[in-house]
Amino acid sequence: MPEFLRLSLPTEALQMLLHALPDREPASETIGTANALGRILAADVRAPHPMPEFPRSTMDGYAVCARDTFGVSDSLPGYLTLLGEVPMGGAPPFALAPGACALIHTGGMLPEGADAVMILEYTQTTRKGEQIPALAEIEISRSVAEGENVILVGEDVTADQVVMEGGVRLRPAEIGGCMALGIVELRVAIKPRIGIISSGDEVVSPEKKPCLGQVRDVNSYSLAALVEGKGGEPVLYGIIPDSLWAMKATAARALTECDAVVITAGSSASARDTTAEAIASLGAPGVLVHGVNVRPGKPTILAICDGKAVIGLPGNPVSALVIAGLFVVPVIEKLLGRKVAPLGPSVLAKLTVNIPSQAGREDWVAVKLLVNGKWEMGNGEARYLAEPIFGKSNLIFSLAAADGMVRISPEATGLSAGELVEAVLM
Amino acid sequence: MPEFLRLSLPTEALQMLLHALPDREPASETIGTANALGRILAADVRAPHPMPEFPRSTMDGYAVCARDTFGVSDSLPGYLTLLGEVPMGGAPPFALAPGACALIHTGGMLPEGADAVMILEYTQTTRKGEQIPALAEIEISRSVAEGENVILVGEDVTADQVVMEGGVRLRPAEIGGCMALGIVELRVAIKPRIGIISSGDEVVSPEKKPCLGQVRDVNSYSLAALVEGKGGEPVLYGIIPDSLWAMKATAARALTECDAVVITAGSSASARDTTAEAIASLGAPGVLVHGVNVRPGKPTILAICDGKAVIGLPGNPVSALVIAGLFVVPVIEKLLGRKVAPLGPSVLAKLTVNIPSQAGREDWVAVKLLVNGKWEMGNGEARYLAEPIFGKSNLIFSLAAADGMVRISPEATGLSAGELVEAVLM
Repeated sequence: MPEFLRLSLPTEALQMLLHALPDREPASETIGTANALGRILAADVRAPHPMPEFPRSTMDGYAVCARDTFGVSDSLPGYLTLLGEVPMGGAPPFALAPGACALIHTGGMLPEGADAVMILEYTQTTRKGEQIPALAEIEISRSVAEGENVILVGEDVTADQVVMEGGVRLRPAEIGGCMALGIVELRVAIKPRIGIISSGDEVVSPEKKPCLGQVRDVNSYSLAALVEGKGGEPVLYGIIPDSLWAMKATAARALTECDAVVITAGSSASARDTTAEAIASLGAPGVLVHGVNVRPGKPTILAICDGKAVIGLPGNPVSALVIAGLFVVPVIEKLLGRKVAPLGPSVLAKLTVNIPSQAGREDWVAVKLLVNGKWEMGNGEARYLAEPIFGKSNLIFSLAAADGMVRISPEATGLSAGELVEAVLM
Repeated sequence: MPEFLRLSLPTEALQMLLHALPDREPASETIGTANALGRILAADVRAPHPMPEFPRSTMDGYAVCARDTFGVSDSLPGYLTLLGEVPMGGAPPFALAPGACALIHTGGMLPEGADAVMILEYTQTTRKGEQIPALAEIEISRSVAEGENVILVGEDVTADQVVMEGGVRLRPAEIGGCMALGIVELRVAIKPRIGIISSGDEVVSPEKKPCLGQVRDVNSYSLAALVEGKGGEPVLYGIIPDSLWAMKATAARALTECDAVVITAGSSASARDTTAEAIASLGAPGVLVHGVNVRPGKPTILAICDGKAVIGLPGNPVSALVIAGLFVVPVIEKLLGRKVAPLGPSVLAKLTVNIPSQAGREDWVAVKLLVNGKWEMGNGEARYLAEPIFGKSNLIFSLAAADGMVRISPEATGLSAGELVEAVLM
C-alpha cells in the first residue's frame, strides 16, 4: 500500500487546510450584550469613558486628606472634624478642608479634598456633635497613604482603552464589564453555517426502524451538536445515497448556502471514492489532503473549493466525531475570527495501563477519568486517573462512556502505565 | 472583630448549604434529542434493542467461515469460491456454505454461515468467473480467527442495557448514540429558574448615564450569563434600592417564582445588613452561613428558606462572580440532578511569581495563562504559565483579562513562584 507512505500527520494536514483557507473578516451582527454569552467579539471594544468615573472608596470608613494623618499612631492619635456623611449614589455635598473628614461607605464617592480612606477599625468618635454637627470629632490611630482604600478615576480602565479584543469569546466577566461601561450592544461574529451531509446506502433516518443491513444516521446529529457547541450553525442536508450524481448536486448546493461543508462518507470503499470524487469536482484548488495518518480516521479528505473548506469524514461515527474535533472545529474558529487557539478544556491525568501505538501515526484513545486518591497539588500525581476504553473504534457508546481523549504522538510507540497524559475533555 | 473567628471556609459552607437543600427529583420535560446538547438527562436511558442488530464487517474484504482459513499462509494459500457481493443496506441474499466466501464492504451485514472477514490485502482473485459466477475463486494467504473484523450483535450495547445514566450532560457523543438507537426524544431536567436581584442606592441600569456617585448594574448581567452557561434559567428582578421593605417584597416574590434566589448586596455596610435581614425574613430555617473566610467575597450569606437556596453575594462585581462560581453553580447542579461534580475545565499551570496569602482564609486569584515554552508532556513543567493579575479586587476588567482562577488553600500562607497550580477556566 504505497499511498500510506504519503499520508500527512494531523498537525501538518490542519496547517495545510488553514493556510489555504482565505483570511477574511468574519461577517458580523449587532446583538444585545445580555444575549452575547459564548459569542465571539467581531472587533475591538474601547472604553467610552474612564472607569470609575469618580474616585471611590473600597472600604467603610472616613474620607480623609492623607497628609492630615501622617505621624499618627496608637500612642499619638490624631483628631479630625467630621463634616458629614457621603450619600450612596450621589456626589458629596461638601469638600474637605484640612483637618476634616467625612463618613464614607464602600463604593461611595470621595469628596473634593480627600485622597484616602481611613477604615472604621482605626477610628473612634470622640465627640458626637449631635447638637452642633460642626463640632463632631473623630479620633484616628493610624496613618494612611495617599490613595489608600481608594480606586482612582480610570484605575480599572482609562478612556478609549481597548477593553476587549476582537476574536475573544464573551464570558460572564466580559458581559459584566461591558455593562459597567454602558455598552449594551456588541458587534459579534455571525455563526458560520456548516453544511452537514451524511451518506451511505445503508444509512436511514433515526426515526425509521432499520431493516437488516441498515443503520440509523448518527453523524448528522453528533456533528451538528459539535458544530453548535463550538459556535457554528449546523445546516443538515440529510442522507445521500452512494451516487456520485446525488452527492455532487447536494455538496454543490451546500457549498453555495454555507461557509463550510462536512460530508461523512458511506462506509464502503466505493462510497468513500464517490465522496472523494464529488469533493474534487466542487471547485479549485480542490482536495489538499486525502488520507491522514491518524487513528481513528485515516480516510479523511481535506479540501478548499472556491475559498471554502470542504471536509470529508469517515462514515464510522466515532472516527467522524474525533476527526471533526481535529479539523472542523479549527475551521469554525478561523471563520469566527478567533485569533488564539482556545484554552483546553483538558485535564492532566495519570494513565492506568500501557497503550501500544504505531510509530509514525497519531492515535486518539478514549478514556474514562477517575479521581486519583493519591493526588495532592505538586506531588507529581495527577488529579485524575485515565483509564482507556478499549473496544472496537466503531462503537458510539464507547465514546459516550468516555470523559476525554488522549493523544499519542506519532513519535511515540505508545504510552506507559503511570505516565502523565493530557485528556482533552469532550 | 471576634466574628471573623467564626467564619466558615468555602468547602464547609458549601457542604452546609447543599446538605440543607432538600434532595428532590428535578422537574423534567421531553425534548427532541437533536436539540438536547448540554442538557442534563433526567432519568436512565436503556437500549430498546441490541446494537448492532446484525453482525457487521468493520473492513472491506471477504466474509468467510474462519474454519476454512485455518492453516492458510503465504506459502500455503487457500482457495474459496466467491458467491457474490453483500449489498450495502440490505441483507445478503445468500448463505455461505463451507469453502465459500462473499465480497463485503465496511458496515455490510455478514451472510449466514460467515463468522469473520478476511481483509482485501490478503486476497487475490484467481478466477474471475465472469461467465459462470459460481466458478469465481479467491486465493487467501492468511488465516482469520472467528469474529475477526466483525462487530457482533449487541457488541456495542445489549438490549435493555443502561446506555446513559440520569444526571449526565448530553454531549455530541450521547446525542449520536441516542440517534443510533432510534431514541429521538429525551427526558431532560427543566432548567432551574434562578432569580437574580441587584441592590444598592448607587446602582443604575446599564442603559443609563450614571450621575456622579452612581455606577451601572454589572451583577445582574454577569450572574445571568453565569447561570445560563451552567444550565440554569436566569430571571432578573432588577435593581432594588437599599430599603428593607423593597428588598423583602422582591425577594419573597422571587422565592415564589424561582427555584433559587441570588441577591447582590449594595456595597455599603448598611446595605449589606439590609440584605441579610431580608434573607433572614424569607422562611425557615433561614441563614446558615453569614460570612465566609474567602477572598474575595467575605460578606457572603448562604440560606435555605422554605426548601430553596437563597444566596447573598457581595456587591463588588468581581467578588459576586467568584462567589457565585463557588456557591450558585453547585446549587444549579444539584437542582439539575447532576450526580457527580462535573470535570474541570481547568488546566495545570506553573506560577510565575510568589503570591502571599493569609493562613486560615481561602484565596482566589485571577491569572492570565501563557504558553510555557519549556513544556513537554511528563517533564515536570506545565503546559501553561499562570501570571497573577494583581490589582484591586473591585476591577471587573481585571477579571475580563483573566483566563482562570487559582485557589490558595486556607492551609497555605501563599504560593511560590515555580509551583504547579490548577487554574479553573472561566
